[in-house]
Formats: sequence, structure tokens, C-alpha cells
Amino acid sequence: MRSAAEAAPSFLYLPDLAGAGDTLTLAADDARYLAKVVRAREGERVTATDGAGLLVTLVLESVRPEVVLAVESRTHAAAPPRARLLCGAPEGERGDWLVEKLAELGVTEFVPVDGERNAWPEAVRLERWQRLAVAALRQSRSAWLLRLSAPCSLAEALADAPVGTGWLADPDGAAPDTRPTPPGSDLTGAVGPSSGFSDAERKLLSTHGFVPVKLAGTRLRTETAAIALASHWAARR
Amino acid sequence: MRSAAEAAPSFLYLPDLAGAGDTLTLAADDARYLAKVVRAREGERVTATDGAGLLVTLVLESVRPEVVLAVESRTHAAAPPRARLLCGAPEGERGDWLVEKLAELGVTEFVPVDGERNAWPEAVRLERWQRLAVAALRQSRSAWLLRLSAPCSLAEALADAPVGTGWLADPDGAAPDTRPTPPGSDLTGAVGPSSGFSDAERKLLSTHGFVPVKLAGTRLRTETAAIALASHWAARR
Repeated sequence: MRSAAEAAPSFLYLPDLAGAGDTLTLAADDARYLAKVVRAREGERVTATDGAGLLVTLVLESVRPEVVLAVESRTHAAAPPRARLLCGAPEGERGDWLVEKLAELGVTEFVPVDGERNAWPEAVRLERWQRLAVAALRQSRSAWLLRLSAPCSLAEALADAPVGTGWLADPDGAAPDTRPTPPGSDLTGAVGPSSGFSDAERKLLSTHGFVPVKLAGTRLRTETAAIALASHWAARR
Repeated sequence: MRSAAEAAPSFLYLPDLAGAGDTLTLAADDARYLAKVVRAREGERVTATDGAGLLVTLVLESVRPEVVLAVESRTHAAAPPRARLLCGAPEGERGDWLVEKLAELGVTEFVPVDGERNAWPEAVRLERWQRLAVAALRQSRSAWLLRLSAPCSLAEALADAPVGTGWLADPDGAAPDTRPTPPGSDLTGAVGPSSGFSDAERKLLSTHGFVPVKLAGTRLRTETAAIALASHWAARR
């Protein structure tokens, strides 16, 4: 385990990278990061991603007056298996670090679900979550950014769910399947809000093929169950 | 997933419970909790634990002027397998929720390890951690409280470690063993600080039987690796 700064001294997230030419000029924040925080020098190599699989090696051409980088090579990282987590609202301010941890553990899509019993706060901070997801991408030097969506109902979230087996975190479920995931297969999980899914919601999950999975010997908080589930997925890949 | 208040309306942690007689009078904090927060009434049943396996069912005899409870029955929950986590310092303020999550996931002993490369802050808040461990015990209605110790060196932590296989969180390790743990077997894990274990520390862990275990496809932060490791243990029990 290394600190973010050590592990990723020069790993940039540039969402518009795919459309860039042979050289590119960094915008203010990234330029400041490279020039002032990392103190990169001309001739140094830097890696950048668009968060959608593209990985580009760049050479720093100039630092002043602008930070200009020349493309040295481009590769495309294969898309990870879809790992989509439908998650009710935890108590308090636990959503922020939940997003950070899920991004680190390789969840590919986080769908905040407004349950019948309790919903995410009005002020769900998608912008803040996006920043946390980017930080996790840089920390783990990943080419794929966690996709975030605005809170929706369970029915809406399930409309986009692939048919197949999903896991429903449930203290009364069976032990999780720990066999490695077959290549290319999707993973979907559902974790109830702090007050739990309603009976109608549980029935809806069941008709969509979700099976109850017991993640620990005791009842877990929403955010703990979500991270435990993501940890299992991470080890199965 | 339910809120702490719903899941455990009347689950008390009373460390001196084993020495209590047939009735007991609650101290200020617990009395206020039962009388004002839960609004328990005379005749209601309450469960209490000493955090060391004892579970007592109590009947509320009076609320005023003091909260007095009569012992109805005593049982002893079997000790869970020893699950001991040696953990270096994460970045920033991440120790607090790390302790909360490890307690929820059933880790039995948390040993903060001062690494050669970086140590826990001077002001490690053992009292605060203790409160978080108690809250997690009540949340999960567990009879066993997470044991916490003051930070020590890796050598000191290992002096108390059972001989046998331990897991060292390591992005270059093998996939974790997901077979159920044989009854009674101890689990020991080690997670490096944010700047990593030194070579000497890794050698020391190796001589104590620790094997590198890969918990995810990418490098994890200290606290994320610790929780991922605890999640695997939780599902194996």
C-alpha cells in the first residue's frame, strides 16, 4: 500500500483524451498538478487515461508558459466485466467514502436507489462523488472510471439490469459463490437502504433473478454490506 | 439493512455484567439511553452483553428514580474464531471508520502497527475507537467486543501471533483461499501502512508464515485492503 502521491505521481484523467491530436496542452488544474505538485520536468513521461479504456503515454515537452505534452503511444485496456451495484441510502454522510471504496475495488457502475422506506438526501453530491471516483482511478492507475448516476427508484434501476443472477445482500441469505467469474459475465448487486428494502422491493428483486447472499455472521450497515460485496467481486476477477 | 436504532433498540453493552447480581441499576449514559432515547417501559425486555460472550435478558423493573433491571436469563455465546488484523497507518483520518467497519465485519482484534516507513499519529484515539467498537457491537447485536490495542512495532505485534498461515495483503499475491475456515482455526492478517511495509518487515512477516494475498485487480489503499480482507474472513465463517 502506497500513498496516492507515491503510487501515481503522474497519472492523469483527461476525459477528452480520445479526441486529442499528437500534442496536447493541459487545462489549469492538471497543468498545476504536473508543474507544482509533481514538479515534472521536460522530457519526463506521464500516463493519461480517458477513464473509458484509453491509456496514453505522453512526454512532457514544455512546462512554461503552458504545459504541453506529446503523445508517445496509445493502448486500449480491455473493459472490465460489468459490475453494477444498486445501493440504498446509508445513514448520515457515509455515501462519500462508499463511492471512493467502490471505485477502488473495481465496481464499474454505482446506482443510488431511492427505496420506498428511505431515499438518498436531496443534495446527493454527484460532482463530489465524481471527484472521488477520479481520485480512486488515479490511485489505482485504472483505465476505467466508475460510472455514477443520479438516484432513481429500484424499478428504474432494474429496467437497465441484465437478466441473470444478481446478489442481494441479506443476513438471512446463503454464503456467496466464491468461484472465479467466467470471463465476460456481468455482476449485479443490490444493497438495501439503512431501513431495508420493503417487501414489494424484495419481491421485485426476486423476479429479476436476485438471490439473497449472506456477507457476514451479523447484520451489516448499508455501506459495509456494499463494500463487502464489492470485495468479493474484486477477488473473483 | 436497518438503522442502528431500529436494529438494536435495547441492546446494551455493560462491561461489568458478569459481576452483577439478580438486579442491576444502570449508570447515567445507559439509563438515559433506555429512558429517553428508546423510551423503554416497565416490564419490557432488554438484552445486554459484557462484550466477552455473556448475553443476559433483563426485565425493566423501574425507570424512576433509577433505571433498575432484573436478570431473567443468562447465556454464553461461543467465542468466535480469533481474527486478528495487524494494520499499518492509513492516510489522514481513515482510522476511525476502519475500526467501525472491522468491528462490524467480525474482526476480533485490531492491532495498529507502526511501520518503519510511517507510524500511526501520536494522538491515536483509542477512546474514540472503543466507542465506535461498542456502537458496532450494538448495531450487530454481537456478544463479542472488538479488542483494541495501542500502536506497536510489527515485531511486537508478531510476538503474540499464533504460528500458522497469515494473510499479507499484497497486489502481487495469489487469490485468497475462499474455502470455509475449519472450526476453531485462527485468522491473522497484515496490511501495510500507506507507504507500504519495508523489505525487512516483509521478510519478518514471511518468516512468521504470512503469505501474500491479492485482494483486488488494482492497488488498494490501506483501509480498503483491511476491509476487503475482513470481508473475506466474514464470508468464510
